[in-house]
Amino acid sequence: MSKNYTVADYLLDRLAQIGIRHFFGVPGDYNLQFLDHVIAHQQITWVGCANELNAAYAADGYARCKPAAALLTTFGVGELSAINGIAGSYAEYLPVIHVVGTPTLRAQRAGDLLHHSLGDGDFGHFSRMAKEVTVAQASLTASNAEAEIDRLLTTALFEHRPVYLLLPSDVAEAPLASRPAPLMLRQPNLSEASLQGFIAAAREKLQAAQRVSLLADFLAERFGAEKALEQWMNEVNIPHSTLLLGKSVLDETHACFTGTYAGAASDPQVKQLIEGADVVINVGVRFTDTITAGFSHQLPYEKCIDLQPFEARVGQQVFSQIPMHDAIKALHQLTLSLAPLWQLPAITRPSLPEPNGSGLDQHAFWQQMQNFLQPGDILIAEQGTSCFGAAALNLPRGCRFIVQSLWGSIGYTLPAAFGVQTAEPERRVLLLIGDGAAQLTVQELGSMLRDGQKPVVFLLNNNGYTVERAIHGPEQRYNDIAQWNWTQLPQALALEPQVKCLRVSEPEQLCQALDKVNDREYLLFIEVMLPQMDIPELLDTISRAIQARNMAA
Amino acid sequence: MSKNYTVADYLLDRLAQIGIRHFFGVPGDYNLQFLDHVIAHQQITWVGCANELNAAYAADGYARCKPAAALLTTFGVGELSAINGIAGSYAEYLPVIHVVGTPTLRAQRAGDLLHHSLGDGDFGHFSRMAKEVTVAQASLTASNAEAEIDRLLTTALFEHRPVYLLLPSDVAEAPLASRPAPLMLRQPNLSEASLQGFIAAAREKLQAAQRVSLLADFLAERFGAEKALEQWMNEVNIPHSTLLLGKSVLDETHACFTGTYAGAASDPQVKQLIEGADVVINVGVRFTDTITAGFSHQLPYEKCIDLQPFEARVGQQVFSQIPMHDAIKALHQLTLSLAPLWQLPAITRPSLPEPNGSGLDQHAFWQQMQNFLQPGDILIAEQGTSCFGAAALNLPRGCRFIVQSLWGSIGYTLPAAFGVQTAEPERRVLLLIGDGAAQLTVQELGSMLRDGQKPVVFLLNNNGYTVERAIHGPEQRYNDIAQWNWTQLPQALALEPQVKCLRVSEPEQLCQALDKVNDREYLLFIEVMLPQMDIPELLDTISRAIQARNMAA
Repeated sequence: MSKNYTVADYLLDRLAQIGIRHFFGVPGDYNLQFLDHVIAHQQITWVGCANELNAAYAADGYARCKPAAALLTTFGVGELSAINGIAGSYAEYLPVIHVVGTPTLRAQRAGDLLHHSLGDGDFGHFSRMAKEVTVAQASLTASNAEAEIDRLLTTALFEHRPVYLLLPSDVAEAPLASRPAPLMLRQPNLSEASLQGFIAAAREKLQAAQRVSLLADFLAERFGAEKALEQWMNEVNIPHSTLLLGKSVLDETHACFTGTYAGAASDPQVKQLIEGADVVINVGVRFTDTITAGFSHQLPYEKCIDLQPFEARVGQQVFSQIPMHDAIKALHQLTLSLAPLWQLPAITRPSLPEPNGSGLDQHAFWQQMQNFLQPGDILIAEQGTSCFGAAALNLPRGCRFIVQSLWGSIGYTLPAAFGVQTAEPERRVLLLIGDGAAQLTVQELGSMLRDGQKPVVFLLNNNGYTVERAIHGPEQRYNDIAQWNWTQLPQALALEPQVKCLRVSEPEQLCQALDKVNDREYLLFIEVMLPQMDIPELLDTISRAIQARNMAA
Repeated sequence: MSKNYTVADYLLDRLAQIGIRHFFGVPGDYNLQFLDHVIAHQQITWVGCANELNAAYAADGYARCKPAAALLTTFGVGELSAINGIAGSYAEYLPVIHVVGTPTLRAQRAGDLLHHSLGDGDFGHFSRMAKEVTVAQASLTASNAEAEIDRLLTTALFEHRPVYLLLPSDVAEAPLASRPAPLMLRQPNLSEASLQGFIAAAREKLQAAQRVSLLADFLAERFGAEKALEQWMNEVNIPHSTLLLGKSVLDETHACFTGTYAGAASDPQVKQLIEGADVVINVGVRFTDTITAGFSHQLPYEKCIDLQPFEARVGQQVFSQIPMHDAIKALHQLTLSLAPLWQLPAITRPSLPEPNGSGLDQHAFWQQMQNFLQPGDILIAEQGTSCFGAAALNLPRGCRFIVQSLWGSIGYTLPAAFGVQTAEPERRVLLLIGDGAAQLTVQELGSMLRDGQKPVVFLLNNNGYTVERAIHGPEQRYNDIAQWNWTQLPQALALEPQVKCLRVSEPEQLCQALDKVNDREYLLFIEVMLPQMDIPELLDTISRAIQARNMAA
């Protein structure tokens, strides 16, 4: 080894060990030394982004496909630009390792009036801010680096949430004695007594039931329960559903899958199948406003069995120290013997709404999307007409659905799609985003083109913030946006882009455009012209609920 | 009055009273009710931006031209996207009133699992973060609204820094009894005893001096001392200079103006004129790293008289409760009688470096810029080759220079130029920005075009992050960026843009392009092709200082 083994190398080796292969971010003068090591690392590829917020969104998207993601920014300016993205990862449980290059420890201790500081000699402002949106923080020194890096990475993986790692430019270069040993991951505690209590309480509840249903949501995906759930649903007949945030956690081609549940905004049959049961088993569910049409779900505690990442409930009774996986295993066993005694209602999947006329409207668009979807696709839908329209789709087997319904940061999906396609270069990525949202983060289209990515981008042009129009002020000027020549944009964002741009305003044009997709030689950018106030039913219901809540003092 | 007078109206009337005429921001579902009132207000115009960080930068630029600026975002996602911009306004002393639309008080108290929250029922995360980068915060209720709005606005104006105002959607609509009376502004305390002590100490120091010089910087501009300084310099012959952050605070056509001071990176004559004096009077100066070439200024305490916004120093002696304006008035009087006794050295202004050859390089570019500048221009230069090159310009009378040297957030200047041109529609705005920086915030070009603005945009294309190459890793891949077709971009960001785009790579082409500018019929977008490693002298010196500091443990 001609060069010293350093803190920077240790950090990169650890990131590689936990399955990270790409490092997203933006260079800055406090992280350039570290970047030399990133570039030199054998297993990790540097992915420069156009700005830090986009880089954070890309890392979040990557963490939805890989065990974790890594993000590099510079002190102050860079990290604060990214912090909304990190907060989203915190809210929606994604393990993003945020590394921030900082001034040297000496300069910080001296309180120097450095650029990218607030000029008051206090270098703690930004880590205090980061504390609100990360589960662990560390400021590395040469002596604490190994222990602190390990603590942060294991915490991020255990809690499945972001961590914040300050790396002074001099510490990155500090020599270390040895390469890392295998990382000891943190395992959740299982209390056998608690588990037995849970099983007894669940048995009592389920024995008395005539009808049982199951709802799964995003935390089931985050805490690795998908396979166990699939096996369970394959062996035991229970009508089951997901909420929008967890859509694709369950196999939607399964005969007992009811369609997406959305409280009072659900298809009446879905609502009846889920809410009409005597016992509802919730797996990794959080009932947030947008996915329940404003908390309109009728699922009283006393008829629910609720599995969270580290504990379970039966009615109001809490059983702590039961990892989700163990609770699923127990319920799987329990229901194997009980389910044959239950009534299994007939399940017919709600069909997509018929087009309203001959033009290209939301209904016509979603019907074509339904036909276009293939097994294995990754569908990323912006919070707006995109995701609420997509809620009604029946996903083919192995199709992944990504949405940011809880944090709901407008513009998120475009850079997230860049991160997802980086993580999954072989899969077909479909991005659905409105014109209003795309303006916030559009420069990452340039990064997609630079890296030769070939997703299909559906730019739903409904002339402004339609999701906001639905909530309030449909005719108000603040819901208009600057009008762009969308189909000219990809050509401007690369020198020789491998891109095909189309604008479609008739169903037949869309149909022809979609026929072109199979070759995967181009990034396909389709501007879909849709009526300004054409709003998917689900969005209409949800936005009326939000408007009412905004006005209720 | 057909409708109730509300908290929203009161806030808007107060903003109008303090001289705000535009409200920057992005709609979100927790601020739409308030936006109805913004749109309806007679004196305030809504200026929608493409994203929140850009809106914050635009507001910061606006606040550099007007008494203050107003920024509207939505809870969580919107405010966090903007927070880097707010931190910049805090670091560089700009009064930005950040209004955040939030869920109703009832929903917050109930801890509802709302979208745009972290899903943990705690609605205080983001205000705790805002506390680090604002000088006052308030959460409005119907009963505290008038007092809290007044407290925040007076604090922002007094400290010339940003404030944070949470406006729940229901509170915005709460009725108020009456329209606001005139706002009582907060005045700084003046201690007459302290002032007399200061005058005595300053007299003693100045009487003993043979040579005196004066340095002014950005806080002189922020705290309204420009006119008093100008009058003083017109009546008393003292060699004077500014640092880069405060460039244009002093009239650069004045015979005693030496050129911009930058510590060891100064022109030798400037350095001698300033540092060679027996006493140096500093007005509103903060010696930060980038503008002093890494703290290389040789200005020991004991020979300085230092005026800050609310206190003054003579050597190590601090005199509190002396507003900057009073200290200037006192020194003005004192120097009227003393200055004739001092030596006044000959002052010849350093000339711009000669072009290195016949091609278009940094030297050729800045010489043409020097000829192009007109009195009254507003020049906005990105932290990078742009501002360090522009440092050598001799500004015509009444020409304003804007740079963000302390916070130094890459990409800042493009949206800031949008804000500046909004504040100063009649003045010619010149934006100088590199290709690396412009990618971060480029979508605000669309807002400029939407609003028919006609600045001159110089896109200095040196193929990546040249300022970072100068500091570290000149050949490293992380300093490359996605390559764009810059001259095609403006056409993509508007449907029928009033824009002229040119790419110039020869001095003669640039000359012809600049000849075209006078008509003001178009936004002129000039892509200036410059050698990748052609770095202004000042940047070269400064970046070597930064690199050395990043490595010194």
